[in-house]
Amino acid sequence: MATIIDGAAIAATIRAEIKDEVARLKAEHGVTPGLATVLVGDNPASATYVRNKRKACAEVGIASFGYELPAHTTQDELMRLVHELGARDDVHGILVQLPLPAHLDEQAILSAVPLHKDVDGFNPVNLGLLGVKGRRPPFAPCTPQGCIELLDRSGIRIAGRRAVVLGRSAIVGLPVALMLLARDATVTICHSQTPNLASITRTADILIAAIGKPRFVTGDMVKAGVVVIDVGINRVTDAGDPRRARLVGDVDFDEVSESAAAITPVPGGVGPMTIAMLLRNTLVAARRRAAEQKTSEAA
Amino acid sequence: MATIIDGAAIAATIRAEIKDEVARLKAEHGVTPGLATVLVGDNPASATYVRNKRKACAEVGIASFGYELPAHTTQDELMRLVHELGARDDVHGILVQLPLPAHLDEQAILSAVPLHKDVDGFNPVNLGLLGVKGRRPPFAPCTPQGCIELLDRSGIRIAGRRAVVLGRSAIVGLPVALMLLARDATVTICHSQTPNLASITRTADILIAAIGKPRFVTGDMVKAGVVVIDVGINRVTDAGDPRRARLVGDVDFDEVSESAAAITPVPGGVGPMTIAMLLRNTLVAARRRAAEQKTSEAA
Repeated sequence: MATIIDGAAIAATIRAEIKDEVARLKAEHGVTPGLATVLVGDNPASATYVRNKRKACAEVGIASFGYELPAHTTQDELMRLVHELGARDDVHGILVQLPLPAHLDEQAILSAVPLHKDVDGFNPVNLGLLGVKGRRPPFAPCTPQGCIELLDRSGIRIAGRRAVVLGRSAIVGLPVALMLLARDATVTICHSQTPNLASITRTADILIAAIGKPRFVTGDMVKAGVVVIDVGINRVTDAGDPRRARLVGDVDFDEVSESAAAITPVPGGVGPMTIAMLLRNTLVAARRRAAEQKTSEAA
Repeated sequence: MATIIDGAAIAATIRAEIKDEVARLKAEHGVTPGLATVLVGDNPASATYVRNKRKACAEVGIASFGYELPAHTTQDELMRLVHELGARDDVHGILVQLPLPAHLDEQAILSAVPLHKDVDGFNPVNLGLLGVKGRRPPFAPCTPQGCIELLDRSGIRIAGRRAVVLGRSAIVGLPVALMLLARDATVTICHSQTPNLASITRTADILIAAIGKPRFVTGDMVKAGVVVIDVGINRVTDAGDPRRARLVGDVDFDEVSESAAAITPVPGGVGPMTIAMLLRNTLVAARRRAAEQKTSEAA
């Protein structure tokens, strides 16, 4: 039976580390890391995500500044806010909650977030740099970074291993593939147009599933000893009781955990890591800013 | 025996197409596409490359503006020139020949080339966008684009095929892998840290070699029917006659062409395509500019 990679526990450890480092930054430099969250419209899921992120900030001592704009906000108004936040000294990170309402140009907004405050790692410049050895972008996107961190903190070697990534989205599949490549894995990226998928997934030492299909990866699709990171979060209802929904991953946990060496559960795997990485990126942004200020004072 | 993918002939066809379209752009819009080439220092290979590019421009009717700066040019001086060229109306594309002398910050210079004039496709923003379906960067880098064009013009299907890319450089391996992915291939990226390489290359329907190791890919490393694009250009001398150097690819052509369905030779494969793609990117840049001017005149 597989070792369970306990994302909730690992994320809690990371949040405790961040809390200590936030306190140290405050004591030594008088700097409190600050995250601005921008929520446009009234998508209830987005509102919940933002609330959870702000709560997580509070728990580790990061200041959060919440902006809630009406659904009819114009591109110009949102751009003005992003530029204003970009100029503020107490805001070290800017998070624009996606998706934005359809009339707004998401890419233009994301590109307006200054790179040194892009704690979500969504600027298109970041994406390509993830795959280039020796050229780290300012911030890696949170969910892919969380996947890598789960491997590292579980003592799983990446270099020289065969990694197979299911899914090629710009948010998860593609960046995690590029990060694994930069860490010297041999990486295969599969997607909906991949024939004979099982013949490829069975070669994986490390399998990352990020396709949004409930229990898609079955026991016969993996080899014994594989390490599985399940990024999927799918809401399913059981036929017997349609009112009771529950969350499952892209991997059939019961089947795959029979032969895997290690596997993340859903929920409690990658999920909790995403917010932990957002907090860490914000801390890092504040720390870099403090170092710059020290340098400019010394000059 | 494999079909030879004749890059020289395909590139000649493309240059003839470009020549026609340059003439049409001139006749219909009064616009002559212009490429500025910037050469710093006196690397003889770089000087040759730039000369060949300017000669190719002349042949298709593209104006070229050559800047040759001394090796001791400062970062500021070079930045000023790039900005000046960025502002000029008769310069539609800017090519900064690499490598730059070591005291210059190559990435800063490349990032200063405006995206709409980055006909080399080397801006880091471009790299990530290459892999994202439905989000094309302004210009794809020339050599990877040349590889894809060779496949397309030879009637080789990419979607649904297994592609293996040897090499992960930001100039060739990584961008060509991302372009194949965006075209719905299932892509594996291999490199110096990949164990059991032959077991992976033997799964390839399409194999791209870009590692700079002479005749590295041998006959036993491919399956029958593979399509091979050899990006390597390696200078080797034969033991018998050390003064006579010749060029070979990363693929052992004689061995691999026994079982491949199609293969590019070296020289005469990918090489001629790189300049053809540079010419095409410059034409496209000029065409976009003409369309913008027309729109703004109409307004």
